[in-house]
Amino acid sequence: MQPGFSFTVDATAGAARAGTLVTPHGAVVTPVFMPVATAASVKGVDIGRVRETGAGMLLANAYHLHLRPGEEIVERAGGLARFMGWDGPTLTDSGGFQVFSLARQVRVDEEGAFFRSHLDGSPVAFTPENSMRIQERIGADIAMQMDHVVALPNDRAVVADAMRRSLRWAARCREAHARSGQALFGIVQGGLDPDLRHESAEGLRALGFPGYAIGGLSVGEAREAMVGTLRCTVPHLPADRPRYLMGVGQPRDIVAAVAAGVDMFDCVLPTRCGRNSLAYTFTGPVRLRNARHAHDSRPLEEGCPCPACRHGRSYLRHLFLAGEMLGPVLASIHNLTFYQRLVARLRDAVLAGRFEAVAHDLLARLGAAADEPADGSDSGRAGDGGCASD
Amino acid sequence: MQPGFSFTVDATAGAARAGTLVTPHGAVVTPVFMPVATAASVKGVDIGRVRETGAGMLLANAYHLHLRPGEEIVERAGGLARFMGWDGPTLTDSGGFQVFSLARQVRVDEEGAFFRSHLDGSPVAFTPENSMRIQERIGADIAMQMDHVVALPNDRAVVADAMRRSLRWAARCREAHARSGQALFGIVQGGLDPDLRHESAEGLRALGFPGYAIGGLSVGEAREAMVGTLRCTVPHLPADRPRYLMGVGQPRDIVAAVAAGVDMFDCVLPTRCGRNSLAYTFTGPVRLRNARHAHDSRPLEEGCPCPACRHGRSYLRHLFLAGEMLGPVLASIHNLTFYQRLVARLRDAVLAGRFEAVAHDLLARLGAAADEPADGSDSGRAGDGGCASD
Repeated sequence: MQPGFSFTVDATAGAARAGTLVTPHGAVVTPVFMPVATAASVKGVDIGRVRETGAGMLLANAYHLHLRPGEEIVERAGGLARFMGWDGPTLTDSGGFQVFSLARQVRVDEEGAFFRSHLDGSPVAFTPENSMRIQERIGADIAMQMDHVVALPNDRAVVADAMRRSLRWAARCREAHARSGQALFGIVQGGLDPDLRHESAEGLRALGFPGYAIGGLSVGEAREAMVGTLRCTVPHLPADRPRYLMGVGQPRDIVAAVAAGVDMFDCVLPTRCGRNSLAYTFTGPVRLRNARHAHDSRPLEEGCPCPACRHGRSYLRHLFLAGEMLGPVLASIHNLTFYQRLVARLRDAVLAGRFEAVAHDLLARLGAAADEPADGSDSGRAGDGGCASD
Repeated sequence: MQPGFSFTVDATAGAARAGTLVTPHGAVVTPVFMPVATAASVKGVDIGRVRETGAGMLLANAYHLHLRPGEEIVERAGGLARFMGWDGPTLTDSGGFQVFSLARQVRVDEEGAFFRSHLDGSPVAFTPENSMRIQERIGADIAMQMDHVVALPNDRAVVADAMRRSLRWAARCREAHARSGQALFGIVQGGLDPDLRHESAEGLRALGFPGYAIGGLSVGEAREAMVGTLRCTVPHLPADRPRYLMGVGQPRDIVAAVAAGVDMFDCVLPTRCGRNSLAYTFTGPVRLRNARHAHDSRPLEEGCPCPACRHGRSYLRHLFLAGEMLGPVLASIHNLTFYQRLVARLRDAVLAGRFEAVAHDLLARLGAAADEPADGSDSGRAGDGGCASD
C-alpha cells in the first residue's frame, strides 16, 4: 500500500474479519460503517454529533461536490475533512453510481460518461482521468475508480460490457491517479453473474489496488441474490486488502456481508430512514409515527447513548407529527449510532471468537426489515433496494 | 413570591439590572434570553446543543402544546422539561398571542377567545381558567396569564378595551391558578399609549404577581415606538420583581430594553433567521448565501465556541446553497449562541459598572439590523416587526 496506509487483519472467524485500516488522517477498526456525507454534510447532523455516534470514517460524493460547490472550493478550504470539520479519514465515491442514478441524458462511451447535471441541466463529462483529478482536489484519504454501473436485472451482454469497461477504466484511473497520501480503490462489477464477478476481481487484482470495492449491488436485486453474489466474489479478492461493499445496506445485510468477509460499508439508510421516522433498534425497526408510541415514555433503545434516547418515544413521535425538524435530526443520530453499535458488536464477536452465534442472534432479532419509502434526496449507493423494497 | 421562587437584583447601572431568578428547576442569571421551543422543540437543535449555547431557560407555547400533542401527553411524560429532556427552568406562554397571530375565525368576548385551530380547523376555546389548567398540566416553572392582544396601530378605544379585558382576565387567572411550584406572571398591555400602559401596570401591581411581562409589542410598530413604550412602562413595575419583554427581538432591541430595565426575553429570531441563512455577529448580521463568502475560510465570528464556527463561511454557504438541513441547524445554533453571549456581555457590563459604554459600543457595532423575510413557522411573540421590517 501507499505510504501512510496500511490494513491489518486483527482476527478472523470463518470468512468474517476484524481489521485495522490506517490512513493519513487516522486509523479505523473494521468492520467500519461510513456515514454518507453526500455533499460534505451528513444530512441534518453536526459533525461533533456524527463523531459521537462512534463513526470513524465518512464518505462523500465526487459527483455532488464537483457540481456544487466545485472541487476548487473544497481544496481551498483545506480538503474534504477540513471543509467538513472532520478529524478523521474520508473516502469519496467516483461519480460512476451517481451518473447512473441521478444524471440526465446520460451517454456512456469508451471515453467516459457524458450527461446533464441533475441540478441545472448543464453538460458534464466524467472520465476516469477527470474523476481522478476531481477526487485528488477534494482530497479524501481514499478515492474510488470511475466505474460503469448498470441496472439489474439486465442482459448478460450489457452487464459484461459495463464490467469490462469498468476494468479498462480502472487501469486508466491507476495511470491517472497521482496524489500521494490518497489511496485508490478498484471496484468489482459484474452484476449477479459469478463468472463476470470472478473475471472482474481477477482483472483488478492483476492491476493491483490497495483496496477493493464491490459495486453494482443494492440496485434493485433481491437480498438473497446480493448475498449470493457477495459470497462468490469475496474469495477472489486478496486477503490482505480491505473489502468495501458499496451502498449496502439494511442491518441484516451488513451482518450477512461481514459474515461473507466484507470490511467496509456505507449506506444512506440510517439518515434517509431517520428522516422518514423509521428508527432501527436491536429488536427490529420502530415506526415513530405509530399511535402506539403516543404515551410511551421509554427510549427507543435501552442503553443507547445517543441524544434521541434521552427522550421518550412519545416525544419523538410528537416531533414527527408536529413537523419539527428535530425529529429527523434525532432519528438520524439514533440510526447512525445504531449502525456503529452494530458493526462494533460484529467486530467484538470476531475478536471474542463467537461471531457465528452473535451473527445468528442478530439476524433473528433484527427481524424482517421494514419497507420504508425512499425519499431519494440522499445519494449514496443504496438504490431503491435499500429503503424501498425490503 | 411562591415557595421555590425568588428574584434578586445583583447590581444595577441606571435602569439596567443584573439579577438572579430562582425557580424549582434551577436558577438563571438575568438578563436572560429564553430560546423559543414553541412545540417543545427548539427548531432543529437537540437539547444538548441548546444547553451548550449557554441557554439557561426555555419558552414553550401552551397554544401549540394544547393542540398537539395535548397537555395530557406532556403531563404523562413528567411535564414540559422532562418531555424535552431539559434540565432547567421553563416558561409557557398562555396562548393569547397565538390566538391573535395564528388562529382562524377568532371571536373574543368577556369569557375568552373562541377560534378554530390553525392545524385542522377544529373549534377551540381559550379562557383564563382553561389556560391555567392547560399550563398547570404542561408544568413549566412559569405560566403566563391569558391576555387579549390586538394589532398595532389601532384605535385607542380598541387598545384600551383589550388592555382592560386583559386586566380582568389577569384577576381570573390569579383566581384559577392553583399549581404550587409554578409562578404566574401578569402581562402589561396598552399598545403604544403611555397612559394605558400605566393603567395596566398599576392594575396588575394591585393584583400582585411574582413577575411582570410587557406584551403587545413587536407586532408591527416602529422600533422607536417600542423602545419609547418600554421606557414609560418599566418605571411602573415593582423593582423587586422580574420584568419580561415578550417576543423581542433584534439584538439592538435587547440592548435597548436591558438599558430600560428589562430582565427577561424570548424571541424566535435566532432560529427563524438562522433557518433563512442570516447569522448574527457582534459586527452585524451576515447573509450566508452571499457570493462574497464563497471562498472565505474564516468562521462566522472569531472566538465563538459554537459548532458552526468550527467551519469556514464557505462551508456554511455551501450548505445553504446545496439545501442541506445542516445549514439551518448550524446557523440556528450559532444565532442562539450569539444571543446568549450578548445577554452575558450586558450582564457582565452591569456587574462591572460599565454598562453605558458597553451598550453604546454594542449598539454602534451591531449596526442596522438586516431585513430578513419571516417564514412564519416559528410562533413566539415576534411578529413581522421582528424578522421582516427592520
